[in-house]
Amino acid sequence: MQVARARSAVGRSLVRPRPTVLSAHGAPSRAQVLRRFESTEAAPLTPPPSNFKSKSQRFLQVLGGVTLVTIVGSGVLYYYAQKDRSPGPQLPHDPTKKTIVVLGSGWGATSLLKGLDTTEYNVIVVSPKNYFLFTPLLPSVAVGTLTPKAILQPTRYVTRHKPRQVSVIEATATNVDPIAKTVTFADTSEIQGQVSSTTIQYDYLVYAVGAEVQTFNIPGVRENACFMKEMEDAEKTQRRFLDCLESAAFPGQSKEEIDRLLHVVVVGGGPTGVELSGEIHDFLEEDLRSWYPELANHIRISLVEALPSVLPSFSKQLIEYTESTFKEAKIDILTKTMVKEVREKSVVLQKPDKSIVEVPCGLVVWAAGNTHRKITRDLMAKLPEHQTNRRGITVDEYLRMAGTDGSIFALGDCTATSYAPTAQVASQQGRYLARVFEQLAKRDNLQARLQLLETAPEAEEAKAEKGSLQKQLAKAEKLRPFHYSHQGSLAYIGSEKAIADLPFFNGNLATGGVATYLFWRSAYISNLFSWRNRVLVLTDWGKVKLFGRDVSRE
Amino acid sequence: MQVARARSAVGRSLVRPRPTVLSAHGAPSRAQVLRRFESTEAAPLTPPPSNFKSKSQRFLQVLGGVTLVTIVGSGVLYYYAQKDRSPGPQLPHDPTKKTIVVLGSGWGATSLLKGLDTTEYNVIVVSPKNYFLFTPLLPSVAVGTLTPKAILQPTRYVTRHKPRQVSVIEATATNVDPIAKTVTFADTSEIQGQVSSTTIQYDYLVYAVGAEVQTFNIPGVRENACFMKEMEDAEKTQRRFLDCLESAAFPGQSKEEIDRLLHVVVVGGGPTGVELSGEIHDFLEEDLRSWYPELANHIRISLVEALPSVLPSFSKQLIEYTESTFKEAKIDILTKTMVKEVREKSVVLQKPDKSIVEVPCGLVVWAAGNTHRKITRDLMAKLPEHQTNRRGITVDEYLRMAGTDGSIFALGDCTATSYAPTAQVASQQGRYLARVFEQLAKRDNLQARLQLLETAPEAEEAKAEKGSLQKQLAKAEKLRPFHYSHQGSLAYIGSEKAIADLPFFNGNLATGGVATYLFWRSAYISNLFSWRNRVLVLTDWGKVKLFGRDVSRE
Repeated sequence: MQVARARSAVGRSLVRPRPTVLSAHGAPSRAQVLRRFESTEAAPLTPPPSNFKSKSQRFLQVLGGVTLVTIVGSGVLYYYAQKDRSPGPQLPHDPTKKTIVVLGSGWGATSLLKGLDTTEYNVIVVSPKNYFLFTPLLPSVAVGTLTPKAILQPTRYVTRHKPRQVSVIEATATNVDPIAKTVTFADTSEIQGQVSSTTIQYDYLVYAVGAEVQTFNIPGVRENACFMKEMEDAEKTQRRFLDCLESAAFPGQSKEEIDRLLHVVVVGGGPTGVELSGEIHDFLEEDLRSWYPELANHIRISLVEALPSVLPSFSKQLIEYTESTFKEAKIDILTKTMVKEVREKSVVLQKPDKSIVEVPCGLVVWAAGNTHRKITRDLMAKLPEHQTNRRGITVDEYLRMAGTDGSIFALGDCTATSYAPTAQVASQQGRYLARVFEQLAKRDNLQARLQLLETAPEAEEAKAEKGSLQKQLAKAEKLRPFHYSHQGSLAYIGSEKAIADLPFFNGNLATGGVATYLFWRSAYISNLFSWRNRVLVLTDWGKVKLFGRDVSRE
Repeated sequence: MQVARARSAVGRSLVRPRPTVLSAHGAPSRAQVLRRFESTEAAPLTPPPSNFKSKSQRFLQVLGGVTLVTIVGSGVLYYYAQKDRSPGPQLPHDPTKKTIVVLGSGWGATSLLKGLDTTEYNVIVVSPKNYFLFTPLLPSVAVGTLTPKAILQPTRYVTRHKPRQVSVIEATATNVDPIAKTVTFADTSEIQGQVSSTTIQYDYLVYAVGAEVQTFNIPGVRENACFMKEMEDAEKTQRRFLDCLESAAFPGQSKEEIDRLLHVVVVGGGPTGVELSGEIHDFLEEDLRSWYPELANHIRISLVEALPSVLPSFSKQLIEYTESTFKEAKIDILTKTMVKEVREKSVVLQKPDKSIVEVPCGLVVWAAGNTHRKITRDLMAKLPEHQTNRRGITVDEYLRMAGTDGSIFALGDCTATSYAPTAQVASQQGRYLARVFEQLAKRDNLQARLQLLETAPEAEEAKAEKGSLQKQLAKAEKLRPFHYSHQGSLAYIGSEKAIADLPFFNGNLATGGVATYLFWRSAYISNLFSWRNRVLVLTDWGKVKLFGRDVSRE
């Protein structure tokens, strides 16, 4: 009752102020005035009672709060995106500074460029691609899960944010002269200007040209198989796969011919081959069953590997997990099987028992390893005494190419080190090299200052400074060797499952499954070099979740 | 004072209920109890006082409400998107039904397929592309404002939702025999199955093969210019334009050569040419200035048109608006100028004064009109008495090809009508034709029923039914002719400006500017055939707003 009364008082007070209660004398007493004053003070501080607000209102408030945070977050993203889009003017090249020529725009080169302070150097990047390609997601492009631009980052998006101008030249390096310290390169693209080949001088050369596809000279590979190394490979694979589907849908095709056209053979059981098989399987289950119902059951995927198991770099239990997932997904794994020839409409295999079979197929994707580029072989041949490793360029622990005076650094897939030829290694080497160049610039500055002091009259202060400088120089000259820190191995295996081998304290953590898949996604997202690419990849994933993959054959 | 007092009373009442005021007798009077009862009743109906809620809380509630609506909307979109992704089983082809063969997958064919009820027909679609291309946005793809997939819609996304199965065949029609009623087509893509060419029978043929690029036999056009008709044209234009930029950035290029490489010549002052010029200008201002600052000022766009003005189908005032916008944007308009030859590094022009000049340039885009495909010329040649119009196929007011028995319908750019060869016309013709086929199916059903009655014994009821059927048949046989309703013309002219010529009551509304640009965007969005494409285009626009266009040359 009392509560009701109180409520009614509140209710009424909204309509009109209650008449002031007067004391017996017709005027408010001092105590009343005081009380009134106190309560006026207290009122605004008291929060409104919670039973006034319905639950839905509170829900809307929370939702509104979340939205507000999202909007503010997007605003911040927008602000930084806009800032990123309009980099300011840069210092011009300075002839008194040393010149670093970077060959390549892959993991090693881009990681170096990201970390490098260009104030002390004139930097020139030469690469046949004017972009960085996030290679681990290439299989996703091949089936249309991602659009090409989502995993490309134009190299200028990095270099234009450097303090001193960086020249980016889209050209293929054709020759390196380690004695004269020059690089020759040529514009090999469709459109060329009057000048399309030139030779430039370097003080330091960062050799990060990567590798090319290893075909082991097996006949027909280059002519009939698709690779999975560059963006055009992924696009070609997608186009061909859809072409196989459309050709199988042509009226009057025999059952055998349909089976042939829809048989995809992936060669190479490394992460690329496994991920591609998984992605094709997803494409089939999530999309092709809807749009090509009459053909879907004819699609078959075979994964061919010469070694006794797929994913040899992963732990045994994850290999087994992959094998059982593939079995469920009806992806055939053919281990200890060698490809002898790739023909236009078939692939010739040597089975574990050494027998030879010709397997009809519509599409062969070759993901079977890397070998050196011609320019790497040529460069190694110029230093025959020091460069004898058939696996690639020999470097010392500071990534300096053996046989040179320390002016050529080599990193990534073109080198022969104890590390696997992975993006992770190349990218750590690039970061390391950025620090090396910082230290070299420091050393050069100290040396220059010392030389200046040598020529100056022998003052007492100069002597003291010289001593200090010499100490600093000794420190600057001591380079710390490159140390690789393994962050783990990840692979997507289709059906929304991934596997991960992670170094964990002193042991290893091997996980597989859907949670690992989400980890795989977030790890890849966080490893992308820019927010732009992160947003593009995330929206692409969202689009596929919503609308599926596209089956138009461009 | 009174207000303060009232507020304090409210404030206090929140903290604890005020002690009940007693009457002189020490117990509540009857009147007091009644009043109290009344007020208890009234209280819950009274809304909580608005000054209790701070403005921010109300703001959050509204925001929460908006978010909730958005989430529910997205949920609905998600639901329909998922439903769209998994179409159920369809009726198989029925040999007792008539067969419609549709040649093409452009505006006319797709619009027909959207509207057609396939229950009464076996439908076979034959097109060299397995998708529909939203052509008006092609210039946006050429500069990277949109990704290719955003304006493509696989034809199966339409046909798989039909009640009866529709065969979609990716092939090029090579021959139509209007007497034997057959079509021959061949798989001309890279990968072909054992069967790659076949001939099929039709009852009705929908001839919607469109047109091909008109080069007027001007030398060098086919070899050296880019077109703007198919998706591959837009992608080629983008690749070449970025190639020109990279070649201009090659070290040692002379100023003249840089100017040549960065001179873009667009031939054709129709909407495509104007929109492309505008889009390239946007690309330059919004992106290239940031990433190629040293080259941006060398980029020049020339728009060449043989007629006295650009956009001849628009009103004079909009033409002037476009011209002044282009002048500000430094796009040169060369009217009354004919292209005499397109060379590898230049274009030869005949100026209004008939003098000939050779203009150096890096890229020529040809958007100068359409002509028939070879198959159309061949088909017309088979009906020489009726098909004499050099502009295209002659049709009657029901879109039936003249000279045939009504089994061939032709629509879109391959026909010679009084309408302009636009997407709008073709798409209305397709919708019209879907209704025609519905009526024809009705007629056929009535005729079949009548025939059945003819053979049956002459019962009284049968006679009555016959009469009714004959009436219905007479109605079904009366086709309404095609009537085109012009919805207006739109064109984007760059710098976030668009122009629109809209039919308005009896007059015309001609508008230009930023508001028209927003109208242009929303008109295009609403004209896209699917929600999927709408979302894809919208997210692409958002991405460009946020991150700009990509400058990686694939």
